[in-house]
Amino acid sequence: MLVVGGGFAGLEVVRMLAGQPVHVTIVDKHNFHTFLPLLYQVATAGLEPADVAYPIRTIFRKSGNVAYRHGLVARVDLDRRLAQLSDGAQLSFDHIVFASGAVANFFGIPGADEFAKPLYTLADARHLRDQLLLALEEAEAEGDVDARKLTFVIVGGGPTGVETAGAVLELLEVCLERDRMQIDRASTRVVLLDVAPRLLGGFSVKASDYALARLRKRGVEVRLGTSVAEVTTDAVRLASGETIPTRVVVWAAGVTATGTIVQGVGPDPGPSGRVRVGGDLSVPGHPGVWAVGDSAAVPAAAGGATCPQLAQVAIQSGRHCGRQILNVVEGRPTSPFRYKDKGIMATIGRNAAVAQLPRGPLITGFLGWIAWMGLHLFYLVGFRNRLRVFINWTWRYFDWPSGPRLIMADAEHAD
Amino acid sequence: MLVVGGGFAGLEVVRMLAGQPVHVTIVDKHNFHTFLPLLYQVATAGLEPADVAYPIRTIFRKSGNVAYRHGLVARVDLDRRLAQLSDGAQLSFDHIVFASGAVANFFGIPGADEFAKPLYTLADARHLRDQLLLALEEAEAEGDVDARKLTFVIVGGGPTGVETAGAVLELLEVCLERDRMQIDRASTRVVLLDVAPRLLGGFSVKASDYALARLRKRGVEVRLGTSVAEVTTDAVRLASGETIPTRVVVWAAGVTATGTIVQGVGPDPGPSGRVRVGGDLSVPGHPGVWAVGDSAAVPAAAGGATCPQLAQVAIQSGRHCGRQILNVVEGRPTSPFRYKDKGIMATIGRNAAVAQLPRGPLITGFLGWIAWMGLHLFYLVGFRNRLRVFINWTWRYFDWPSGPRLIMADAEHAD
Repeated sequence: MLVVGGGFAGLEVVRMLAGQPVHVTIVDKHNFHTFLPLLYQVATAGLEPADVAYPIRTIFRKSGNVAYRHGLVARVDLDRRLAQLSDGAQLSFDHIVFASGAVANFFGIPGADEFAKPLYTLADARHLRDQLLLALEEAEAEGDVDARKLTFVIVGGGPTGVETAGAVLELLEVCLERDRMQIDRASTRVVLLDVAPRLLGGFSVKASDYALARLRKRGVEVRLGTSVAEVTTDAVRLASGETIPTRVVVWAAGVTATGTIVQGVGPDPGPSGRVRVGGDLSVPGHPGVWAVGDSAAVPAAAGGATCPQLAQVAIQSGRHCGRQILNVVEGRPTSPFRYKDKGIMATIGRNAAVAQLPRGPLITGFLGWIAWMGLHLFYLVGFRNRLRVFINWTWRYFDWPSGPRLIMADAEHAD
Repeated sequence: MLVVGGGFAGLEVVRMLAGQPVHVTIVDKHNFHTFLPLLYQVATAGLEPADVAYPIRTIFRKSGNVAYRHGLVARVDLDRRLAQLSDGAQLSFDHIVFASGAVANFFGIPGADEFAKPLYTLADARHLRDQLLLALEEAEAEGDVDARKLTFVIVGGGPTGVETAGAVLELLEVCLERDRMQIDRASTRVVLLDVAPRLLGGFSVKASDYALARLRKRGVEVRLGTSVAEVTTDAVRLASGETIPTRVVVWAAGVTATGTIVQGVGPDPGPSGRVRVGGDLSVPGHPGVWAVGDSAAVPAAAGGATCPQLAQVAIQSGRHCGRQILNVVEGRPTSPFRYKDKGIMATIGRNAAVAQLPRGPLITGFLGWIAWMGLHLFYLVGFRNRLRVFINWTWRYFDWPSGPRLIMADAEHAD
């Protein structure tokens, strides 16, 4: 049995099958699982890459029926039950689970895929961090003090965009105040753009209002109902014709399923290129073929709407899929997936977050922030990573002069 | 005043000048200082890059008279007192300190600079780690079980070579035993080559014998009196004509001063391309021009021999140079540098090290290992890095299933 992808969804599928009388191979081009919800902290030099990544082999080191294969699935022959890897190897399977995740959706906006930086992989986060820190160093090296202007633009007002905007602002403050960079705070801008009329579209209006007020109070320039027409090497052009000069554009506007291998799986492509699946998450007409997480159009309930592309959906659909595969293997009927809304949350920098429970109150401020931290620590893989992140956060809370503000791109091209 | 390079030597120069009535700019192409003695642990996935690197701005954040400039010094005009950076900027100076370190010395051996991996920068360590882990994954992915052979070659039997050989062996054990990789331990080799008749040439014969016995007992294939004739993409060819098939060659055979900017400084190039300096570490004939650490031919005492390229020499010469600059600035005469041998040490993997004190006994085994760890923690910059490394080591000592065995090259080329 083959699981394609070691993200939240794929990992949960395998966890359900670990120790069971089946043999599972998990294939991923990265030898590690990435904890996506904290990527923005890696990008803004709050956490280290290794704090949010965990080797897949190590996760399943005690499960003798689970193997990891380092590689990229290039093609899948559903009829012959063969997966072709990009290194030429062929793997046969009885069951296959597509859990290959998503990539940034640039909505065809010119220049966006070339000049805007998405935040969906560990490599994205590292590149963005280098870009942010290099932009600061370049502004600092500018001989003319009056020319030391700096603008960072974040496109997309969902949780990722909101969290990144808050964190970029804090990085700026640390570099200017703690590291004594000679850039005037007044000549720096952090701009958050969204085409929607409010931030955090999936949350309540009250949560949106809170996030907006909070970000504005901290100094983020939030512009709603604003669409991007073009991204160039040194500016973002808006649909209104206005141009915002910037060298760093973070793209947090949405995702689309990873194309190559999921295309052609299932009857016709679902929304955002996702694989259409039945109620039990299997692909109709292809017994033993499953799709979960961001690469699947996961139904919220039998005949219901499609779930949003969230970590909770990936986790729950992965678990459900693992259980259904066991049902099939052991000759039992499958059951339909039901998404259980456990609430959504987003931080807005230090001491502030919104946590929206399904049928509970909206928690904001310090309490929301503590809840946010607790939940993220809980879901992080590996006790050591939890400890490291906890130490980092505690440290940063009381004093944050250090922190990994290392420009690694320099190290890449050293000498 | 300009200090070129933020390694051990440059950092100490600036530390002596911090808070004094002078203005110091430290220029480095990396915005961080790298703790070189632990690079081999980064390369063998024991530590994270951020554990051994520290932002230069942060080190001097409380010293108002110290500025950091991100950049590479391309040329220095000693007569006009101008340093030209590779980004085009010019910096004028009254005093300049060359502390730009060294690069690997390949001794003109064909293929070595192309296919062997040095271990002198953080980028080197990260590349080597990726190479080691990728070689393991490739061997594992090999369909033919009998073809799953793996050889790692380390060239150079000094402390770096000895420490790396021990650590590579441990990495192998972790991957095979803990991560359940399907490679037979018997078909893997870790080969340590040195042209000299004994390991750890700078140590006593007793220390060399101990290191040799210890490494051999652990399973490292040590071959002394063996010189390398050529390195190719898949083998090391020895002077004897014998060929050792390998995809990963670690180059720990020695260093030479970083060429570009130190060439032409001083009367004539010293040993290993280093700048010849007077007793007070200034360059004869050029008042206000100084050289320290690996880029200088530091005299052990007035008229004495040249010091070896060691961290202790860099630290002590940096401190001395900083003090002499203050002497000159404040109109006092300079004093000659005297190297104080504080002893040398090297680990040979878990529970074993040799520590050689100047006029004391040779400490080996567990006690030497504890001494080695304590000293390295003491010299590491930044309390947070010390804490992280200490936690990592403690963790690894008792159980080391996790650890940052992440192949980052994958993340670089993702999607």
